[in-house]
Amino acid sequence: MQATDWQLDENRFFDPEPTQRRLAAEIYAGIAHLPIVSPHGHVDPRLFADETASFGNPTELFIIPDHYVFRMLHSQGIPLEVLGVPRRDGEAADSDPRKIWQLFGENFYLFNGTPSGIWLSHELVSVFGIRQKLDGKSALSIYDEIAARLEQPEYRPRRLYERFGIEVLCTTDAASDPLTAHQDIRRSGWQGNIRPTFRPDAVVDLLAPGWVENIQALGVQAGLQIGSYRSYIQALEQRREFFKSLGATATDHAALIPQTGALSQAQAEAIFQQALHSQVSPEQAAQFSGHMLVEMARMSTEDGLVMQLHPGSLRNHNPEVFTHFGPDKGFDIPTATEYTRNLRPLLQAFGRHPRLTLILFTLDETTYSRELAPLAGVYPALKLGPPWWFFDSLNGMQRYFEQVMETAGLYNTAGFNDDTRAFASIPARHDLWRRTSANWLAGLAARHMIDLADAHSMAYEMAYGLARHAYRLDQ
Amino acid sequence: MQATDWQLDENRFFDPEPTQRRLAAEIYAGIAHLPIVSPHGHVDPRLFADETASFGNPTELFIIPDHYVFRMLHSQGIPLEVLGVPRRDGEAADSDPRKIWQLFGENFYLFNGTPSGIWLSHELVSVFGIRQKLDGKSALSIYDEIAARLEQPEYRPRRLYERFGIEVLCTTDAASDPLTAHQDIRRSGWQGNIRPTFRPDAVVDLLAPGWVENIQALGVQAGLQIGSYRSYIQALEQRREFFKSLGATATDHAALIPQTGALSQAQAEAIFQQALHSQVSPEQAAQFSGHMLVEMARMSTEDGLVMQLHPGSLRNHNPEVFTHFGPDKGFDIPTATEYTRNLRPLLQAFGRHPRLTLILFTLDETTYSRELAPLAGVYPALKLGPPWWFFDSLNGMQRYFEQVMETAGLYNTAGFNDDTRAFASIPARHDLWRRTSANWLAGLAARHMIDLADAHSMAYEMAYGLARHAYRLDQ
Amino acid sequence: MQATDWQLDENRFFDPEPTQRRLAAEIYAGIAHLPIVSPHGHVDPRLFADETASFGNPTELFIIPDHYVFRMLHSQGIPLEVLGVPRRDGEAADSDPRKIWQLFGENFYLFNGTPSGIWLSHELVSVFGIRQKLDGKSALSIYDEIAARLEQPEYRPRRLYERFGIEVLCTTDAASDPLTAHQDIRRSGWQGNIRPTFRPDAVVDLLAPGWVENIQALGVQAGLQIGSYRSYIQALEQRREFFKSLGATATDHAALIPQTGALSQAQAEAIFQQALHSQVSPEQAAQFSGHMLVEMARMSTEDGLVMQLHPGSLRNHNPEVFTHFGPDKGFDIPTATEYTRNLRPLLQAFGRHPRLTLILFTLDETTYSRELAPLAGVYPALKLGPPWWFFDSLNGMQRYFEQVMETAGLYNTAGFNDDTRAFASIPARHDLWRRTSANWLAGLAARHMIDLADAHSMAYEMAYGLARHAYRLDQ
Repeated sequence: MQATDWQLDENRFFDPEPTQRRLAAEIYAGIAHLPIVSPHGHVDPRLFADETASFGNPTELFIIPDHYVFRMLHSQGIPLEVLGVPRRDGEAADSDPRKIWQLFGENFYLFNGTPSGIWLSHELVSVFGIRQKLDGKSALSIYDEIAARLEQPEYRPRRLYERFGIEVLCTTDAASDPLTAHQDIRRSGWQGNIRPTFRPDAVVDLLAPGWVENIQALGVQAGLQIGSYRSYIQALEQRREFFKSLGATATDHAALIPQTGALSQAQAEAIFQQALHSQVSPEQAAQFSGHMLVEMARMSTEDGLVMQLHPGSLRNHNPEVFTHFGPDKGFDIPTATEYTRNLRPLLQAFGRHPRLTLILFTLDETTYSRELAPLAGVYPALKLGPPWWFFDSLNGMQRYFEQVMETAGLYNTAGFNDDTRAFASIPARHDLWRRTSANWLAGLAARHMIDLADAHSMAYEMAYGLARHAYRLDQ
Repeated sequence: MQATDWQLDENRFFDPEPTQRRLAAEIYAGIAHLPIVSPHGHVDPRLFADETASFGNPTELFIIPDHYVFRMLHSQGIPLEVLGVPRRDGEAADSDPRKIWQLFGENFYLFNGTPSGIWLSHELVSVFGIRQKLDGKSALSIYDEIAARLEQPEYRPRRLYERFGIEVLCTTDAASDPLTAHQDIRRSGWQGNIRPTFRPDAVVDLLAPGWVENIQALGVQAGLQIGSYRSYIQALEQRREFFKSLGATATDHAALIPQTGALSQAQAEAIFQQALHSQVSPEQAAQFSGHMLVEMARMSTEDGLVMQLHPGSLRNHNPEVFTHFGPDKGFDIPTATEYTRNLRPLLQAFGRHPRLTLILFTLDETTYSRELAPLAGVYPALKLGPPWWFFDSLNGMQRYFEQVMETAGLYNTAGFNDDTRAFASIPARHDLWRRTSANWLAGLAARHMIDLADAHSMAYEMAYGLARHAYRLDQ
Repeated sequence: MQATDWQLDENRFFDPEPTQRRLAAEIYAGIAHLPIVSPHGHVDPRLFADETASFGNPTELFIIPDHYVFRMLHSQGIPLEVLGVPRRDGEAADSDPRKIWQLFGENFYLFNGTPSGIWLSHELVSVFGIRQKLDGKSALSIYDEIAARLEQPEYRPRRLYERFGIEVLCTTDAASDPLTAHQDIRRSGWQGNIRPTFRPDAVVDLLAPGWVENIQALGVQAGLQIGSYRSYIQALEQRREFFKSLGATATDHAALIPQTGALSQAQAEAIFQQALHSQVSPEQAAQFSGHMLVEMARMSTEDGLVMQLHPGSLRNHNPEVFTHFGPDKGFDIPTATEYTRNLRPLLQAFGRHPRLTLILFTLDETTYSRELAPLAGVYPALKLGPPWWFFDSLNGMQRYFEQVMETAGLYNTAGFNDDTRAFASIPARHDLWRRTSANWLAGLAARHMIDLADAHSMAYEMAYGLARHAYRLDQ
């Protein structure tokens, strides 16, 4: 076994220039131990509903559910089956977790210089106490170390939540979800602060697979028979109230194109009726989605839920992979996205409304300086979400700081989201954000663009204050 | 009152790395005191027509006319009325300048890390001698200090023009403007070099509000009855000559899309006649605008006026703000812009003509390396204007240097424009450009890509020579 | 004559920060002397077919054939004729090579800070031993020095190939090219490794000038009468085999838009027949090109040739230049390019095929992080080519590293291409890539994102291993 020398450098991610590095370390020291606010993510709430829930084995924790990880291995020619990714038809994927982990170790060098590599290293070293660098030789002994830890009570989800210093964790939940796990958490008496987020995509996109069934499920949960657009809106409003009653402060909306535009009630009703009979055209579905974004903004002005919009991902780019393995398998590819014209109808209606907060995300970085920062820099309702998905990375963050902040101003941004389903990676992701933030502010201070007092105050906002405020978690 | 310690660091904006910083400071020292050439901006020439003109009170100088400032305050929910922005219907906006200034001081932290923050700090410290950092506590005493200075004769516009070391200042003037203020300046005997720029947008865009009245006004100024396309062209040519007689060396053209393409005389006449009867379609108006860009290039090859094109801003994004407050209120949002295909007809006709200079600007930074630099790097008529509007910032300049210069070459760029209506910010803006230029050149020299002699010579061009040459102010 | 002091600094292009610079120099030292792999370029193979071939005079070597050079001189108003660029009509261009060189020397400052400036300086200093900086004063004595060297046997192409340490050099050759020079090289017994690349654009683009004649030439070379789509495909397959027999490992494809999509055999045949009668519409030609990209991918899965796709250049932007001087005169301008949707049909068909390698290039850097890195980070068949054409520059490489690597991972990239017709610039181009790579890795190591062992291994791949592997030159 090799020497136990795998460490995380205390100055990692800081600029090597000594003045900037010293300032970065000083600024970071002031925010490193702030509680984690995680206002947007995809952790399964069932992990916290049961005190004894476990993460399973190391392969089940690190590889099989994490498309950030297996897509990179697949890109080098390793079949998804061999990585344990389950097939929809139930045909056996490879099921020996040690064999999969060995393959992961042999290929861990593929993650050199990637955010996944940074997060995984942080998790292994800092959460699981691994001291050997992961490679083909060390893989199995590391597997055994992690597996042993995962059997200990202090590695159960609730204990890690506490150890990670999480103040609040928001999940993402379908509009028709009964939120059973969330109710169980509340009833359990555990003090963790887990909140649902209302995500209605599956009932808003008229061409979503199973839309008619989704509408029925929505009706069941709302206690309504949904036979009209009017009752559909009622059901959505009731569900939003129910989510709020379990702590929700936000909604979340995906779209390929962020088209917005209100229909008349009659138009909306007509399209809705056609959808109920599965006779809706793509154009009508797009109009209806654009209408519903405006309608959701209207509801937000009434019930106060913060609205989030994440456009631009062309999902399931490879139909063969979708057919055999399902969604969220790494084959979601960004496309160019237009905001200035598309959001105009929504912003005309509610962009200056004092009760609306609309948080925008993008997978098209060209929109940072061209569209998003100018929009957020003038519309009171708008805030910009942090760099998202592929851009949740050191360079992604730096580009975001450099392209957004000068025009939007820091205070029109929404702090950090980890947006992850990989619970054990949450501290790593927030740490990267905090270090990169501190380093950016150190660069401003070293260039005398801000003074050090401003830098400390801005760092606090970036690590903690802005997210709490934007998501109304401070109310 | 707090200690009087607000200062501008002598090495501000330079890279903290000692070698680069030392080189940057040395290069900057060679250009810091060069005269200011301001070939494109929006300062009101009436400020210089009357020796006793004044800037009013501090709120009238810094806040009410400057959409860079009040848009940021509005983005955080402060109504425009509360900031003193006048309503079109004459309903009273807040009118206590000290109250507005107090609000500005309390929110001055919003400008941390923004170019407005940098310019405002520079103006307060360097132009007005303020020594306390602006915040809610210091706001009113700073107001009083500035107000007192503004009453002194040495703070009148002409005196500041001289103190700022301005060699030439070009304004922007409608094609139908009688240029009374410019004539008054010339007649006054004052030695300041204030020149008009010919901006015909309001008579070229057939759908501009009041186009028919604008055409009548153009006719009055040209001494022509404009009843045909032919007389319209005559009037424009005469006005260009009149502008030249008062010192103009350039024209300026806005467009949402930089579409170009010549129509036949008959087509142009037919569309023009329909426009006179307010019967023109959006498609026809776009064709006519595209035609007129080619026609203006043709005129430039004849009368030698340098042509400027600024496309890509979707003006008045929020109609409610436009209705109540008018244009230029911070709600102008960029859009993706295409140059390669759109400019092709104009460049086929005149792109290699020895008498044409066409200076291009963009609000879409993706076009720097993809379209603008390759175009400017081969067409003799083309020059690239400096980073514009939202990109007149430290990072905006760095991106411009890094994305434009390798392909276009420095000598196909046009130096710096401040493009401002905030006269007192002119030295701050040119200083930021000069420091950022020096720092960029220092980086090239420190990497041994150029030698120090080249760096000094390039810095002189960036600060002074290129703008004079591109705008034919050296002829 | 001035002091002989023109040198290439041993730390050029490295970050000035001492820690990063030291690491960069250490990493570079490990790769500086690796053999050059040049898997894609436009060097004329005839240079190597004849042992006594010469590069001509300095103007013929450096200026007349290199559109990177004369486009910059033209952009400042120097007519192409004056630079010796030959006219199609045979009218005399300026033919005094010393006069042209003098003009080049006087204007050499235009290349300050550009990649051409870096390459030219490297060639002059390192290949030709020039010790005076090129300018108007030194031009003619430098001309004489170079001219004298070019007459020496050690400056013949084969000797420079050996001196440059080239391991393999791939040329680009039309599908109908008999590859005479390649056959001559093989027969000559010279040990240089020169390989052809199969470029079928002129027979695939149905609207290419002379397409019917190109098809006839293709038939002659394939020994087939091409009267049908079926025989056309047969001919292409046979030509690919012939190219392989002379060492080809790759094909190369240009497209304005990277549209892909299979037609039925009947559709393809129908369009092909119309093309034979010159009756094809632009839409049909586009469909056929998109079909042929899929068909070429299919052939690659069978014969193992690596496929390259270079879209996005709008060629011959100025028709007057094209008419008088022909193609490749600096008037090829990039356009925005879409990959996610356009490549989907091809990737659905073959993106996960174990025998396909498809190397993608772009002239639209916005696609690096938005489309190309996510696609290459999941599809096994995809690799990303290096920064291309205008982006083969220090900043272009840095943007590529920063925008591609975090998402795609280094191992889904294809190393470096010089893509040049300027043979003497090859060492300069590879050296810039190696230095910029070493500097990027040094930055990662200095930030503790990778360790130094990883940095050395990644540097080896970037300089040598990845290109050999991606182009199957290691098989």
